Amino acid sequence: MARKRLIVIGGDAAGMSAAAKARREDPELEIVVFERGRYTSYSACGLPYYIAGVVEESGELISRSPEEFRGKYDIDARIRHEVVAIEPVAGRVRVLNRETQKEFGEPYDHLLIATGALPYCPQLTGSDARGIFGLSTMESGLVVRRALDEEKPSRAVIVGGGYIGLEMAEALIRRGLKVSLVQRGPQVMGTLDPDMGAIVSEALRKLGVELFLGESLTGFEVRDGRVRAVATDQRTLPAEMVILGMGVRPRTALAGAAGIPLGVKGAIRVNSRLQTEVEGIWAAGDCAESFHLVSRRPFYVALGTVANKQGMVAGINLAGGYATFPGVVGTAVTKVCQYEVARTGLQEEEIEAIGLRCAAAVITSKTRAGYYPGAGEITVKMLAEKGGGRLLGAQIVGEEGAAKRIDVLATALHTGLSAADIVHLDLSYAPPYSPVWDPVQIAARQVLKGV
Amino acid sequence: MARKRLIVIGGDAAGMSAAAKARREDPELEIVVFERGRYTSYSACGLPYYIAGVVEESGELISRSPEEFRGKYDIDARIRHEVVAIEPVAGRVRVLNRETQKEFGEPYDHLLIATGALPYCPQLTGSDARGIFGLSTMESGLVVRRALDEEKPSRAVIVGGGYIGLEMAEALIRRGLKVSLVQRGPQVMGTLDPDMGAIVSEALRKLGVELFLGESLTGFEVRDGRVRAVATDQRTLPAEMVILGMGVRPRTALAGAAGIPLGVKGAIRVNSRLQTEVEGIWAAGDCAESFHLVSRRPFYVALGTVANKQGMVAGINLAGGYATFPGVVGTAVTKVCQYEVARTGLQEEEIEAIGLRCAAAVITSKTRAGYYPGAGEITVKMLAEKGGGRLLGAQIVGEEGAAKRIDVLATALHTGLSAADIVHLDLSYAPPYSPVWDPVQIAARQVLKGV
Repeated sequence: MARKRLIVIGGDAAGMSAAAKARREDPELEIVVFERGRYTSYSACGLPYYIAGVVEESGELISRSPEEFRGKYDIDARIRHEVVAIEPVAGRVRVLNRETQKEFGEPYDHLLIATGALPYCPQLTGSDARGIFGLSTMESGLVVRRALDEEKPSRAVIVGGGYIGLEMAEALIRRGLKVSLVQRGPQVMGTLDPDMGAIVSEALRKLGVELFLGESLTGFEVRDGRVRAVATDQRTLPAEMVILGMGVRPRTALAGAAGIPLGVKGAIRVNSRLQTEVEGIWAAGDCAESFHLVSRRPFYVALGTVANKQGMVAGINLAGGYATFPGVVGTAVTKVCQYEVARTGLQEEEIEAIGLRCAAAVITSKTRAGYYPGAGEITVKMLAEKGGGRLLGAQIVGEEGAAKRIDVLATALHTGLSAADIVHLDLSYAPPYSPVWDPVQIAARQVLKGV
Repeated sequence: MARKRLIVIGGDAAGMSAAAKARREDPELEIVVFERGRYTSYSACGLPYYIAGVVEESGELISRSPEEFRGKYDIDARIRHEVVAIEPVAGRVRVLNRETQKEFGEPYDHLLIATGALPYCPQLTGSDARGIFGLSTMESGLVVRRALDEEKPSRAVIVGGGYIGLEMAEALIRRGLKVSLVQRGPQVMGTLDPDMGAIVSEALRKLGVELFLGESLTGFEVRDGRVRAVATDQRTLPAEMVILGMGVRPRTALAGAAGIPLGVKGAIRVNSRLQTEVEGIWAAGDCAESFHLVSRRPFYVALGTVANKQGMVAGINLAGGYATFPGVVGTAVTKVCQYEVARTGLQEEEIEAIGLRCAAAVITSKTRAGYYPGAGEITVKMLAEKGGGRLLGAQIVGEEGAAKRIDVLATALHTGLSAADIVHLDLSYAPPYSPVWDPVQIAARQVLKGV
């Protein structure tokens, strides 16, 4: 019997996790990965730190090279190969070798689409000018760092106050630039409720970031092919470098063109085994849908953790095993200098949108016992369902040591714990790590009063 | 109708939490607290840091003074008052005023026993010599710090390698002493499995602590009323200061003498409302039993977190409300310089003792993304039940950033999550905080293979 053949489109987190897992589960499977860029298995999340110079060499971000996949895993990982069409009926993909510009067909028994996400890029005059950058692939990160090293810009404007926007704000401040940030919404971090976002806005100002909230990007001023300024609906901001951090969307044009059904935000619709609705075709990572365990609805999220987990699950299934990805609870964390920002579950607005009602509590406490040196401030917002008090969401903003606490609440969301349950969790305590009542438990006690 | 009268014996965590909570719930209740020492509501857990000089003033450890309780809470908190007998039939306690040495009777409607724990002290010749210290009350901490400040000892021996032993090792190293530690067991931290304890032993050696493992204390050499050396079954160790950290036991002589039934390790038997088996008498904190949610048996633990929670629950009930304390999962954490040690659930030995069987996995990973500066080592041991894979216990030893992760697993224990569930938890990720697979999830993946 001929070896079965798995083709993977996309050589980063989801694709390579799936390929490596499939290989471990089935030594016989033929595995080919097509990656349009030059790199496999790199940490896109590490790019801001490379740009900041905190991580010195780009190579440190790469966990495994194509050569390693070939040598150690018997995975035929071909970089600079772009899949340009999926032909489900024929069971074949069309591939463009970007070095030779030759196109060829490759048959598959199973196909995994792991094409990732792409940054949202506004269709505005001048948006293709030099000096304007998005951040998604390894290549896009290298380009930004090179621009900083070689062109030594002194003024940057970041458009968008989400995770990328905040991490790039830190990176550029570290590089000594004067940084402005334009955000359409009333506060940065739209994945937090506005009251918690306001704390982050304030922290950014303290770090020296000039914020322009409630302003929309309208265009770019360009001279000699280079960006000179960012125009908003209220002003013009001089800029030698512009970072677009306006969010990402799933890269699913290829899947869509092949007739593979898409779902939330255009992400590929999958079941919990990561199967698409087309026989033999699977999808995982930033191009695929997830399921939100709190809202109980399909959900789109582009995160490395989810991509890795989905890749692992897809890999087991592709090798003939059985595994499911239960879903996510919407956890995310970021760091801006000494400030930490984390969230999980649903925001107030999302809770309302699905017809539920919640009590909210916001408390401020310390990251260590009050008397222990280095105790920082931490603010916890907790949202619990009216009536039973089931936890629905939580947000944490604070100084060093604040953010990882979100994981307790993420775990609580997975199992439907109530605020009353959280009060009684046997959490660890020592003065260097927390007050005797952990801040998440103080918040739980508080929110109970309103349930 | 006359005001009901609550008497509380013991003015630290459990007692004062209960008193304050009862006051909030019932403004009418008369509340009297008798505390034999001079302090109320202090952080005993903070004493090693005060002794180390990390916390400068002892007053920082006190969260509320007797005057504050009197003024703000209308709680009659009387320090230097020792309850010397409980008379359940008469509904009365006998109290000794330690200032005047006068004894008197005080009637109660409800009595809360919150007498705490006392350090285990071996009955050996010389154990009452000057220079030998236990650590439990505020006073005991003040005495140690004064001895360091005034007598400037240069060599200390710590007997016992548990939490107090380790924290005092850090404290005395910070104070510039040469520190030896004698431990009866094969490794320090008997609440960890020996393989994990060995990592802590090694860390202590790196910090310069001389370890004598598998040796038992046999006595003290005393000259002019002062300790000069510690004798073990294998050697004599010169010492100008000796710290006894041989564990604590519940301080329940008073309760026992009054005929109140005692349970595990002599702790006062209570139901989940914190009622003893004698009408009108309640107990909370380090003198009372807990219930272990994993072993499903009564359990004794002396920890500030548990004392605070039990105090809160007792306070609600004492004020006529209704609350229960569900129990503990055995979580604890400590810090020794840059090393962090945490545990939750059951150890291998405990699992065997209750007739269960488990798979074990030990993995070593990083506290941050490998490429992020400051990534420290972290070792996670996970124990999961054979068959279903239910988490039974976990231990973490590592460098900065390691310990608080135990809380995710403590939360998982509360809800009976399996290792497979833990693999799929939507935990937060950013390169400064963890690898993309959090170490606890790497351990969960590993232990699954043996389930």
